[in-house]
Formats: sequence, structure tokens, C-alpha cells
Amino acid sequence: MISVPEGFLFSAVSCGIRKEGRLDLGLIFCEKKGTAWGVFTKNTVKAAPVLIGRANLKEPFHRAVVANSGVANAATGEEGIKRAEEMLKEVAGLLKIKPSEILPASTGVIGEHLPLERIIPKLGDLVRGLSKERVEDFARAIMTTDTFPKIAQRCTKDGVRLLGIAKGAGMIAPNMATMLAFILTDGYLNKEEIKKMLSKAVDQSFNCITVDGDTSTNDTVYFLASGIKEVRDGKDFTENLISLMKELAYLIVKDGEGATKIIRIRIKEARNKSEARMFAMAIANSPLVKTAFYGADPNWGRILSALGKTGLDFNPLNVEIFLNDKLCIKNLQVQTQEETLKAEMQKDEVSLVVRLKLGKVSYEVLTCDLTEDYIKINASYRS
Amino acid sequence: MISVPEGFLFSAVSCGIRKEGRLDLGLIFCEKKGTAWGVFTKNTVKAAPVLIGRANLKEPFHRAVVANSGVANAATGEEGIKRAEEMLKEVAGLLKIKPSEILPASTGVIGEHLPLERIIPKLGDLVRGLSKERVEDFARAIMTTDTFPKIAQRCTKDGVRLLGIAKGAGMIAPNMATMLAFILTDGYLNKEEIKKMLSKAVDQSFNCITVDGDTSTNDTVYFLASGIKEVRDGKDFTENLISLMKELAYLIVKDGEGATKIIRIRIKEARNKSEARMFAMAIANSPLVKTAFYGADPNWGRILSALGKTGLDFNPLNVEIFLNDKLCIKNLQVQTQEETLKAEMQKDEVSLVVRLKLGKVSYEVLTCDLTEDYIKINASYRS
Repeated sequence: MISVPEGFLFSAVSCGIRKEGRLDLGLIFCEKKGTAWGVFTKNTVKAAPVLIGRANLKEPFHRAVVANSGVANAATGEEGIKRAEEMLKEVAGLLKIKPSEILPASTGVIGEHLPLERIIPKLGDLVRGLSKERVEDFARAIMTTDTFPKIAQRCTKDGVRLLGIAKGAGMIAPNMATMLAFILTDGYLNKEEIKKMLSKAVDQSFNCITVDGDTSTNDTVYFLASGIKEVRDGKDFTENLISLMKELAYLIVKDGEGATKIIRIRIKEARNKSEARMFAMAIANSPLVKTAFYGADPNWGRILSALGKTGLDFNPLNVEIFLNDKLCIKNLQVQTQEETLKAEMQKDEVSLVVRLKLGKVSYEVLTCDLTEDYIKINASYRS
Repeated sequence: MISVPEGFLFSAVSCGIRKEGRLDLGLIFCEKKGTAWGVFTKNTVKAAPVLIGRANLKEPFHRAVVANSGVANAATGEEGIKRAEEMLKEVAGLLKIKPSEILPASTGVIGEHLPLERIIPKLGDLVRGLSKERVEDFARAIMTTDTFPKIAQRCTKDGVRLLGIAKGAGMIAPNMATMLAFILTDGYLNKEEIKKMLSKAVDQSFNCITVDGDTSTNDTVYFLASGIKEVRDGKDFTENLISLMKELAYLIVKDGEGATKIIRIRIKEARNKSEARMFAMAIANSPLVKTAFYGADPNWGRILSALGKTGLDFNPLNVEIFLNDKLCIKNLQVQTQEETLKAEMQKDEVSLVVRLKLGKVSYEVLTCDLTEDYIKINASYRS
């Protein structure tokens, strides 16, 4: 049962942007003058909706989010910007708001244009369809290779509601805003507060996951507040926001393309955060480690080798590796029977803890295994 | 027909290091006092043979190479060093040379020990088996997931011979000495010449290939000269050396785990070599690009996105992408019919040229596609 923050309506239609008969255009409407911020991909190649969204954030108020799947509208040049703006202008006209009060997002194939001739005729239905009940339809409209819609919610002690909707399955990588996510709240927050909270929460959630180390041209997270309820306890609100975004990040990894299991990698006792993150990401993005997890092979040599690939200084003799709390190696000696470790690795979720004995800093990253299905999905994605 | 440089003998035996009945220990003996140099992995975790080999290079002369497959003798601590040294001592005794005149190398599973109880009894056979004819046996003894032995040869205008033997299929990655390779020549070169030539040739060959972006704990290239013939034309010799090592690098990529095709990525008109290399490696290591090549999908958006992932500045509008000399995109517009590009991508070798229009520097990297077989091989490698 989804409990929607006050002031928001949702809709979705099927335009046949890429495939017939599936929802591919979604709308979130904020009945009040909402306050918003966004974070975007760090890829040099930025999609048209990213460029427009970034510019629109300068507005003091925001009223809507328009998001489509099928076509990323990235690497589409001036024409891509023109088409996105035309679509936003039409939606704005129907909603009686300014186009710059809309936050756009797209996901899908790079280099193809938005088929306005199929989208424009459906915009009337899109706006007429707005309702509190259609959160899941919106979540489905932004899916690409996702196998399930991703929705999470929280309610603070003060009764302020938070709702998050996300998509993302492959092309998820570190150091960026990551995939598409829309965070809505009925709490009142000013722009500076929203900015600060979003940045902090992204750093602890979406920036700590990786599926394949590839980073998209379209990654976007918008945080939009309708401002109806007072946020009395800022700390409690922030904790709920982070917890909500961590749940969305978890769902994205769980739905990693072809993944059969989640791997929770925790680096312990590193010298500092930057090195801890480098160690964690080296393991998380190693194809050899990811395939070993797929095969439930406690191949700790590959884990050690991935740590060493960073070139960072550490003593292999000091490294302790735990699989689901079972000590795997210490002093480069195996400590637990291979069959026991294999059984742990066959679970749907495996925790990998690496103790470095260099300092006091911990860092956690979520990833998934690498399977034949990842290859199948991505070798034929456009076909 | 292999034409062996003068002064070298080869041998190989089957010790059952990991699997019964396959050659897994090889020996190269230099009848004269040879001169040698080596380059090694940059991984922080260095295998015992890498540590010993690096120390032994301080000797003025070298007489032998001992290499095994099955066990990498990496992450094996003091005991790993001790076992490797014991093996070298035994071989040295039989060959009547100093242990420090032997250059060791290992490849295989990390974290397991050399089974001396199975190796030592075979060392007599190994030394007795030495012969000019057994180059291929040596090449087979160092294979792991390799599907064919890798041998290349050259002869300079002066009649100086060069022979190269290599192994490597997965775990091949940039910025390192890469896999195992042994380069032999009957030319006379002093240590400084060997050092300089090897470094230059590695930079242009093994450092320009990547299979999966993972870097091994054991990568080693040794260059050993028996010194029998005069090298009159140093430039001609160096060109032959580079060409030989490029051929070995090509063979390694061709035998990339699970690969169905070679991708030759050439970045043109970059600002400098370092950026050109970053762009080339970002494409070469992108799982999404590699799977698209596997599926013969001219998905240029993924190529552009991989370029952007570097965070380096460039204008997507200026980028031209060619597949086998067919112009794919210009001004973000597709220039050649998809079916034509698809047909090109179905070939065994595909050239991908990216023109950036930023400067004058070119850089080339070889890689292979990413297939279900890579996953199968690596999910079950230890089993």
C-alpha cells in the first residue's frame, strides 16, 4: 500500500516511443509551488534532459516531472534539446505552468530522437490521467531493462511523508548521481536545505552502488518538496531520506542486469575514505570477482588481486577476508573449509568484509554478480 | 617452422601441479652467460616469482627461465618464497649454475602453494629433456585458460634471431607488464640496451591490450640475450623486437577468454597521449561496448558514453566514429546504414576509429568482445 505525500499526482501513458503497448511516458504533478533540486551524471556527454533539467533548477519553484523511457535523448545535439523543449512546452500549456517549472528525465537508447509525432498526441491523456493512485504506473513508465518497478516510502515521526521512485538496472556506476530517481515529500524545505540533504543522501546511497562500472549520459536524481507539512525534526527527516534512498539503491542493484545475487562489500580499517572507496570499487567492478561470486567460488585470491590492482599500499599478510561473517583468510592462510564458504556464497545476498588494518575508516559498496544473462541482455538490447 | 635463436634449449614436464597429464613446468636454458631484463606487474600484491625475479635481475648474467602453470604462487607469503627458492636451487644444482641466475615465473590460481613433493622428482627429467626442438612444449607448459600456444619470431637484416613465447587469456589489463612473456635473442646487447629496448617495446605492445581490465599478481616479461651474434643495426633490431611483441600481444587478445572477435580501437586527434589512452581504455574496458560488439550492434551511443565516462573535455558534436573505415556518425548524425555497419561488426576483427578533433595525438588499443563464455570460464575456473 503506497502512502503518497500530499500535493502530488501521477500519470503515465503509452506512446510507442520504442515498443508498442507499454507505458513509456510518466508525469508527476505538484499541486503547490514545490521546491526542488537535482544531481546529474558526471559523464562529459550529457543528455538533453540533463542539460535542460540543470538549467531549470534555477527557477525558485517547480511543479512537475516528465520522464520517458525508450529513448535517452542523449548525443542528439540541438535537435534533441529542441524536441525536449517542445514536449515540455506542450505539457506546461496543458498544466497551465511555465515550461521551466518542469524537471525532465529520459532513459533508453542513446543517439535516437524523441518521436514527438507519437508523443504530442498523447499528452492530453497524460495530463487528464493525473491521480494520487498512479504511482506504480509512473514507476513502470520509466523502466527499461528493469524487471520490477522500484518504489520506497518513509514517514517521519512528525508525519511528513517521503516517497521515492527509481529505475536502473545496467549502466550503474560510481561517482555519479546514478540512473533515474525521483524523491517526493510533503514536508516544507527551502532550496538550500533540499540541496544539502540531497547531496548528503546521494553520497551515502546511489554513489555506493555499481553494477558494471559503466556510467550513463542520463543519470538524474530529483528531490521535490510540495511544502505542505512542517519539518520539525530535520535530523529525523534526513535519516528517513537517507534510509529511503539506500532502499532504492538496494533495489537497483537487486535488479542489476542478469544478477543472481547481491554482494555487500565492506572495507574496514582503511587509512581514509578515498582509499577505502577505491579498494571497495576495485573489488566491486572486477569481472573476475563478480564471476567468481556467480559461480559461488570462494576465490579469495581474486579479491586480494583486485585490492592490489589499485596500486595502493597495504600488506597482503595483514588482510582478513570474511564471507557472511565466516573468516576466509588471515595471514594468507585459509581459515574456513571451502565447502562452508561455498554454501554461504550460494545465498541471494553475500556480505564480503575486508579488514585491512591500515587505519580506522570503513566504507560500504553494493554490487551484484556478473552472469551470462548480463551478456545476453546487452548484446541484444537494441535489437 | 620455428627458427630458434642460437644458444637456447627448451624443455617441459608434467608434474600434476594442478591437473594430471598436462605439461605444467617449463625450462629455458641459455648455454652462454646471457644478459637479461624483466618488467613486472604493478599490482600491490606481487607473486613470489615476481619478487624473486626482480631481485635476481641484479645479477650481471642469466642462464635460465623456469616457469610453471597451475599455481600462481601469489599471496603465499614467506612459505611461497621459500618453496620457489627451493625449486630454483634444485634446478640450479642440476644445471650447475647459481639459483640467482634463474628467472622464475608462475601462472594459475592465487593463494595456493607450489606442490614441491610433485615438482622436485620431475626436475631431473626436465633438465635431461632440454633440446632446441621443444619450444612448443615450453609454450604449452605455461598455458592456463589459453586455447593455443603463443609463439612469434623475427630475424633482423643482420641475421640476428628473436623468439617470443607468451601466455595470457584473461586477467589481461593495461598499465603493466602483462601476463607471461619470454623474449629470446642470440644478439649481443648489454644490460642497459636490453632494459631500454624492453621498456619501449612493452609500452607499445603489452601495455596496449586489455581483455577484462583486471590486472594480475604475476605478470612478467623477461628479455634474455645469449649474446652470440653482433647487433649491427640497433634500429632494425628494435623494430623487429616491437613487431614481435605486438604479434604476441595480438595473439593474447585473440585468445581472450571467451572472445569471438578482436577490436582494434584507435583514438585520433587527441590532445595528448595520456588522454588518448584514457579514451581508448574507457571504450576497451566498457562491458556495454564489449557486449555490443559481441552482438554486432553498431551502438555508437555506448561508445560516446564510454568516452564521456572519462570526464575529459570534448565536444560530442565533433566526434567522428568509423567502423572498419565506414563512417558511423558525424555531427551526431548516423552516416551509414545500420545493416552495413552490422555486417562489418560480424567480422573476426573490427577496427573502431574515433576522431576527436582536439589535437594531433593518436593511440591504439587492442581488446576483444565480452561473451557468455567469459562468464562460464571464470565462474568455474577453480572447480
